[in-house]
Amino acid sequence: MEKKFLLILFLGIIAPVFLGAQSTKAEEEEAFFVKKIYDEALTHSQAYPWLNHLCRRIGGRLSGTPQAAAAVEYTRQMLDTLGLDSVWLQPVMVPHWDRGEPEQVRIVNSRQVGSIDLKALSLGNSIGTGPQGLTAPVVEVKSLDDVDRLGESLAGKIVFYNRPLDPTQLNTFSAYGGAVDQRGAGAARAAKYGAVGVLVRSMTTRNDDVPHTGGTSYSPDAPPIPALAISTNDANLLSRVLQNETVEVFIRNTSRMLAEELSYNVIGEIRGSTKPGEIIVVGGHLDSWDVGQGAHDDGAGCVQSMEVLRSLKALNYRPQRTIRCVLFMNEENGLRGGRAYAQNAAAQKEKHLAAIESDRGGFTPRGFSADGDPATFEKRYRKVTQWLPLLEPYGLSFSIGGGGADISPLKPQGTMLFGFIPDSQRYFDYHHTAIDTIEAVNERELNLGAATMTALVYLLDKYGL
Amino acid sequence: MEKKFLLILFLGIIAPVFLGAQSTKAEEEEAFFVKKIYDEALTHSQAYPWLNHLCRRIGGRLSGTPQAAAAVEYTRQMLDTLGLDSVWLQPVMVPHWDRGEPEQVRIVNSRQVGSIDLKALSLGNSIGTGPQGLTAPVVEVKSLDDVDRLGESLAGKIVFYNRPLDPTQLNTFSAYGGAVDQRGAGAARAAKYGAVGVLVRSMTTRNDDVPHTGGTSYSPDAPPIPALAISTNDANLLSRVLQNETVEVFIRNTSRMLAEELSYNVIGEIRGSTKPGEIIVVGGHLDSWDVGQGAHDDGAGCVQSMEVLRSLKALNYRPQRTIRCVLFMNEENGLRGGRAYAQNAAAQKEKHLAAIESDRGGFTPRGFSADGDPATFEKRYRKVTQWLPLLEPYGLSFSIGGGGADISPLKPQGTMLFGFIPDSQRYFDYHHTAIDTIEAVNERELNLGAATMTALVYLLDKYGL
Repeated sequence: MEKKFLLILFLGIIAPVFLGAQSTKAEEEEAFFVKKIYDEALTHSQAYPWLNHLCRRIGGRLSGTPQAAAAVEYTRQMLDTLGLDSVWLQPVMVPHWDRGEPEQVRIVNSRQVGSIDLKALSLGNSIGTGPQGLTAPVVEVKSLDDVDRLGESLAGKIVFYNRPLDPTQLNTFSAYGGAVDQRGAGAARAAKYGAVGVLVRSMTTRNDDVPHTGGTSYSPDAPPIPALAISTNDANLLSRVLQNETVEVFIRNTSRMLAEELSYNVIGEIRGSTKPGEIIVVGGHLDSWDVGQGAHDDGAGCVQSMEVLRSLKALNYRPQRTIRCVLFMNEENGLRGGRAYAQNAAAQKEKHLAAIESDRGGFTPRGFSADGDPATFEKRYRKVTQWLPLLEPYGLSFSIGGGGADISPLKPQGTMLFGFIPDSQRYFDYHHTAIDTIEAVNERELNLGAATMTALVYLLDKYGL
Repeated sequence: MEKKFLLILFLGIIAPVFLGAQSTKAEEEEAFFVKKIYDEALTHSQAYPWLNHLCRRIGGRLSGTPQAAAAVEYTRQMLDTLGLDSVWLQPVMVPHWDRGEPEQVRIVNSRQVGSIDLKALSLGNSIGTGPQGLTAPVVEVKSLDDVDRLGESLAGKIVFYNRPLDPTQLNTFSAYGGAVDQRGAGAARAAKYGAVGVLVRSMTTRNDDVPHTGGTSYSPDAPPIPALAISTNDANLLSRVLQNETVEVFIRNTSRMLAEELSYNVIGEIRGSTKPGEIIVVGGHLDSWDVGQGAHDDGAGCVQSMEVLRSLKALNYRPQRTIRCVLFMNEENGLRGGRAYAQNAAAQKEKHLAAIESDRGGFTPRGFSADGDPATFEKRYRKVTQWLPLLEPYGLSFSIGGGGADISPLKPQGTMLFGFIPDSQRYFDYHHTAIDTIEAVNERELNLGAATMTALVYLLDKYGL
């Protein structure tokens, strides 16, 4: 390549960032410190060993279970090793749902396929069928609106929600968002018309044999009915069968809600040197579903948030503001931890400048979504996007969108919310399944996420909002 | 968020691309067609089923083996199903290296660890030790320069190259590029001073038990000596042992070079309607190493290139220029296919406008590197970067850098070369190993890569260079 062209490139693209009129020594130092953050995460991160313990030694950490309690204790101990200014547990009462015995879902006496078992998981919060199970004719629908149209004709039936995720959505979270009403609200809607149970196509873009659990919500207006997810391959099978005949399905699950349990958000902080009253939160949720190991959802977000504090300490960074890692309890089936945290913050009159949540898996970082109080959001968003020259070399950008479920209750307090956005392609292969295990997590991708979160925390601390 | 701010965002970011003064109906149609390309790949791609066959039914496809021949036949048959204008095989003689019996590498009688087997693979093209194996003292070095400094003192020794990949390189190909001279040239350099064998730390950022093979080259100035890779965990172990004592290592491998074999590049094309003499190549390499299944390296690049043609046909796109898919033979240990293709193109006086190679794995797309004749590169690069508004919504950018080994012999013919650049974080977990299998490939990521290559082919065809 011609040297002249290289020079043009340099002057046109690189120089304005680090040299030239707009650049200062301070900016060069910032770029250098951001590089140090990434170097530290790629050489000394503890995120993967911590995640390995959470996944292999503890496993799935559903709220109210002994595993969730073990995860609270383990992460508290690990935060205690980091030389933070404070580590504490914030009590919160959580629901305790129990899956019960392995689920049975069976097409009964089909002319086409005979009797055949389907791969199924009860949806979180679902009631059980009772020990005898239940058998009923199945009606396939594609939407809640379909259910409203079919109305009373669904009495005594099992409603089968089978609208797939849209595979043409580049961002799989958009595809998920376009389908998940079936899982979250499908049981309540069908129950309104007298349906006796629901089956829901698993929330994934893949066609495979892995059922995906996840929360469902009942309505006070209708009785709870059993709700189960079936794998996408089995949803396709059931749909094909239904094209040619009416079939009955047998369902048996023994899921039930137990008494609430005392649990905790796990919190550690580095106290700010000059503005300790301005708090920057970085967090994920420590609970997971009971199947699998909750590796990407959301062990990854927890260990990344812990790693933010570890690396700031390792780099001898003294923050002006208070940097707080919060591992929220009960995101999956209640959001009790996120709500309790925000309530407590309000009661204590704490000022939360910003909160960053990582709850989209431990994949290669792409940037952050941002959300906040409309009164200040424009100005603040413009400010953070001025930091892009420091972040773009790491493949990062900002977009406008929700920050995350656990930190969302802080929004009314004027907190700027950031959602860490990694590459989304693989997330819904694993989400809420038995295969969300440590093997699905790449150590470098996980660590790059931690570094990315640390970089934003550093800039928020240095410049405020 | 305030509506006003949304409007500002729209006017500032989105509108200039698709509306406003610079935008035209043609540009809107282009954006629409690029979207159709992605939709097609995300709904009807054959890339993954094809890759599944290459990986599970055929497996590792080292040049000269029956598996390589089966891959030629299979991909030819699949191209024949696409309704192309021509499908043909381009003969090329290839080396045929044989790994022989499972390798043995053993630390012998260490005071610290006793005798212990290390996980090892002969490097490609390596000679064998003979059936008795060989035992010699080991000397650890970090570079070819170290070897030059140690000089004649290495006579009769086994040289152990142990400089790790730099984990702080964000792009793992940069880390690989900074270490791979040890594998490629280490044996020749050590042999110059009378060393009897070399061990090379595997080319990966991970610490694990998986040895990575890959080509080594001998020099006419020194006798060939056996060269093997050991896993990074075992390299760390051997290095620790060597800190406290001199140890001998036993090596036994029966690798050897056999007679050359006739093989083929597999080629299919859609003939251009108005400019058939201007050829746009899209390709990968059909051979792989013998261990594993050559899934990411480079089955992925092959099936993506085939998918480019399939999807253009499925979308009823009639190219102006000739679009040619080339599956190159023998990239791994000879580059005979790439060289033969370019020689033939020159002999036939074909004009290759551009060539795109996919040989960095089937991961989420990030963009393309570009390279070409210095006399025209500036102008052409400026032209392709004008297409960025169409590609940036898919997370893509252009950078300056090599296009790929197989297409590099076309550069002197004035061809613009593009390397497809996917996310690099996981590639060297699998590269040249027994774990480069179909399970390591995500179907959506693979298909997004195919769509990305198709989009560039479309723009090159529409606008030329």
